Amino acid sequence: MDGTGVKAKEAADSTKVVGLVIGALLVALAVLMAVPVLAEVVAQSGDWEAFLFSSVITGFVGGALMLANQTDNRDLTHRATFLVTSLGWLSVAAFSGLPFVFSQVDMNYTDAFFEAMSGVTTTGATVMTGLDRVPPGLLLWRSLLQWIGGIGIIVTAVAILPFLRVGGMQLFRTESTDKTEKVLPRPGQIAVAIGEVYLLLTLLCALAYIVGGMTPFDAMNHAMTTVATAGFSTHDASFGYFDNPFIHWTAVIFMISGAVPLALYVQTLRGVGETLWDDPQVRGFISLLVGVSIVMALWLAARGDYGFFEALTLTAFNVTSIVTTTGFASTDYTLWGPFAIMAFFILMFIGGCTGSTSGGMKIFRLQILAILFRTQVRQTLYPHVAQTIRYGERTVSREIVFSVALFVFVYLASMLVVALALAAFGLDLVTALSSAVTAIANVGPGLGHQVGPAGNFAGLPDGPKLIMAFAMLLGRLELLTVLVMFSKDYWAR
Amino acid sequence: MDGTGVKAKEAADSTKVVGLVIGALLVALAVLMAVPVLAEVVAQSGDWEAFLFSSVITGFVGGALMLANQTDNRDLTHRATFLVTSLGWLSVAAFSGLPFVFSQVDMNYTDAFFEAMSGVTTTGATVMTGLDRVPPGLLLWRSLLQWIGGIGIIVTAVAILPFLRVGGMQLFRTESTDKTEKVLPRPGQIAVAIGEVYLLLTLLCALAYIVGGMTPFDAMNHAMTTVATAGFSTHDASFGYFDNPFIHWTAVIFMISGAVPLALYVQTLRGVGETLWDDPQVRGFISLLVGVSIVMALWLAARGDYGFFEALTLTAFNVTSIVTTTGFASTDYTLWGPFAIMAFFILMFIGGCTGSTSGGMKIFRLQILAILFRTQVRQTLYPHVAQTIRYGERTVSREIVFSVALFVFVYLASMLVVALALAAFGLDLVTALSSAVTAIANVGPGLGHQVGPAGNFAGLPDGPKLIMAFAMLLGRLELLTVLVMFSKDYWAR
Repeated sequence: MDGTGVKAKEAADSTKVVGLVIGALLVALAVLMAVPVLAEVVAQSGDWEAFLFSSVITGFVGGALMLANQTDNRDLTHRATFLVTSLGWLSVAAFSGLPFVFSQVDMNYTDAFFEAMSGVTTTGATVMTGLDRVPPGLLLWRSLLQWIGGIGIIVTAVAILPFLRVGGMQLFRTESTDKTEKVLPRPGQIAVAIGEVYLLLTLLCALAYIVGGMTPFDAMNHAMTTVATAGFSTHDASFGYFDNPFIHWTAVIFMISGAVPLALYVQTLRGVGETLWDDPQVRGFISLLVGVSIVMALWLAARGDYGFFEALTLTAFNVTSIVTTTGFASTDYTLWGPFAIMAFFILMFIGGCTGSTSGGMKIFRLQILAILFRTQVRQTLYPHVAQTIRYGERTVSREIVFSVALFVFVYLASMLVVALALAAFGLDLVTALSSAVTAIANVGPGLGHQVGPAGNFAGLPDGPKLIMAFAMLLGRLELLTVLVMFSKDYWAR
Repeated sequence: MDGTGVKAKEAADSTKVVGLVIGALLVALAVLMAVPVLAEVVAQSGDWEAFLFSSVITGFVGGALMLANQTDNRDLTHRATFLVTSLGWLSVAAFSGLPFVFSQVDMNYTDAFFEAMSGVTTTGATVMTGLDRVPPGLLLWRSLLQWIGGIGIIVTAVAILPFLRVGGMQLFRTESTDKTEKVLPRPGQIAVAIGEVYLLLTLLCALAYIVGGMTPFDAMNHAMTTVATAGFSTHDASFGYFDNPFIHWTAVIFMISGAVPLALYVQTLRGVGETLWDDPQVRGFISLLVGVSIVMALWLAARGDYGFFEALTLTAFNVTSIVTTTGFASTDYTLWGPFAIMAFFILMFIGGCTGSTSGGMKIFRLQILAILFRTQVRQTLYPHVAQTIRYGERTVSREIVFSVALFVFVYLASMLVVALALAAFGLDLVTALSSAVTAIANVGPGLGHQVGPAGNFAGLPDGPKLIMAFAMLLGRLELLTVLVMFSKDYWAR
């Protein structure tokens, strides 16, 4: 075989691996759809056919893809990895929407796709109203989607993105810290250990919710969407339904637990590598939450409507919900006036820690930019002294600073482009801008009368719903993973 | 003298030079105040005392500063340059506000300071209403402030900022292009040549306005504020007062003429170095203006209210006005609906070319980030191939990319911080956000009912006015020049 032939064979193999992986994902999704079938049968609410039907279709397509793409090759090229990551997430969202279409709630496919994408990307924006009357199978399905989306993004962030050099995440390549190289397990084992921690956190959260007085069904659903920092609720009033500080503080703790790097739990438990408390990302994150919650609580209490503890419960819950990109609401904080609205708008951009379930631009990128600022000020004052950039115990290479800076620029520019597209459908400035930010940062609620914490996205036209669903995927995969495929270079050769 | 003594002597000398330069600036300002005295005497409108009084105070303070800081030393340290740049602009704004206080319009000092800062920074946001009835001396003073602010920022950008390594402007150090080093004159001579071009452009613009039917007084005022891309008008309706496409297109041409690097005129005329048409910044800038104006005109014409040429006159004028950061309005474009409002909001961020009178983040930074994006995509696809970054004929060093990326981050972050501060005074999201952007980008009008192109800033409380005035200065001096002085490192030793 000549050179061209080998290349063509490699390309064909690569395409087959992509098909195989996506097929396997869909088969797994079909199996997952059996869980709500069971729930519906137990509850005797009669929506089990919707899930069975969806499961059969999804399983059939997945199985066919697997059969059609049999190959001995198990290696993905660099290029194919971008494709499989984006297509994988897209396919899962596309098929997880089916139960919404077939169920009693009778959604059109655009709404179903929006809801499913909002689910798997752990965004938590919803187009559904009357949640309190929705069949239990469908509520469980929404929570399950967010829960698997949460673990899915952690695995993607730990095992795939650092190797694609996306947005400075190469800083977190597991093999890059020399000291821990020999004692830490390989990525596959890390993924399993992270999965165990994730399950354990979810169970603990559910238990705490039950202790606080939730029904077991509500506790299970909210535990899944809390630890996944995702935000779907089983009630239209979200956490406003539970008038109980214990439940609210439980949510605060477990939203935070899902927004810190889950690999650090494994390292902390095993006593190797960086622990949760030395990590600069975790420290910065917790300091931010504590600082902002206290300042806003003082401000809220000073207005005279609440006592300090009540105010702190409100601000801690809602600030944590937005910064971790969960998106639960315990009250309509947009009624707190312009200062609060602007503060929540700014908080929507930030996000939690990388390697967690949360979205946004992530704390480490803010920290790297802050360090770059200090370095540049010194460079300006002492032009002839070489400055190195350090982040915790890591030296930050120039390549990483470039990636981070580029990420932040692309992140903000994408928000403006998405906002412009939404405005073209007639959405006003506040609705369009906050919807774009909330979708790309995977937060959930927007701002303004329609899409704010007391509203939802049901009333938007189809165009904006589809744009937002795409924006959620873009944000979830750290933008560049998807955008790379729109470049001419990607398709060259 | 021992080492400490020498250091102390140097520091004292440095402080004296700062005092001397600021004193000289104020004396020059006092002389400039004689121009409106003359105008008032000629027009016999009786406000000449306000300017004479302001001139005496300013001249006295300036003269005292010069006398108190006599020194043979003419060298500014790196540190002192930051201080003298920021304090120089601040002092000029502070004293140029005096005529507003002493004149018949009887402003309080906060309003006067806002108006003067908006003048010298060429922002063009105003707190004055009833302009059509304001005495001619004061109208001329507003235009003069913008005109000297325009040439002031060009000199600052060409002669000072590149050496302070602020925001990637070291890319434009005159000595960095080896090819032109021997044929181009020194910075001092360049400044004189740029001043001549600036004066010539202003005269041509005034002439064209007179041909178009403006009174000589209106033509002179608008010519000064057009070429300075600054935006003060002598009428409340701004260019809406002149219902004449010739005048509007004249304004478009001369706003553009002030928003391209003025040094390029000198180079083009002398036939050395890069000409206006090879410069990647100018090409990008013109393409952007033409593209956006045509797309918006098509969209506006399609809505059926205007024919295409009428629509193009409207979009070309208002798009050019915002992108060049001039801030004239020929109509209330916020009545064109959500898409136009969002488009103008995005356009407010961009700005013209560096080395011109316009503000904003500047075209070259956008271009450098776009090039970085392409480079990073290639780097992602071919991890082992070294990529160099080129901008036109220049190779862009990593240090410059860092500066640019940091600038953009600080620019956007400052806007959010300023918006939060404005919201704390009760301004709603759209007003606070657009006011912050328009101040830092030195554009002029904001968005929304109150501060949009049909409104003004008169109704804001004093707090927001002072915050905005500070934000204008921050933006005008490319942020870092001012922010450096807030760092601990600046004051170390």
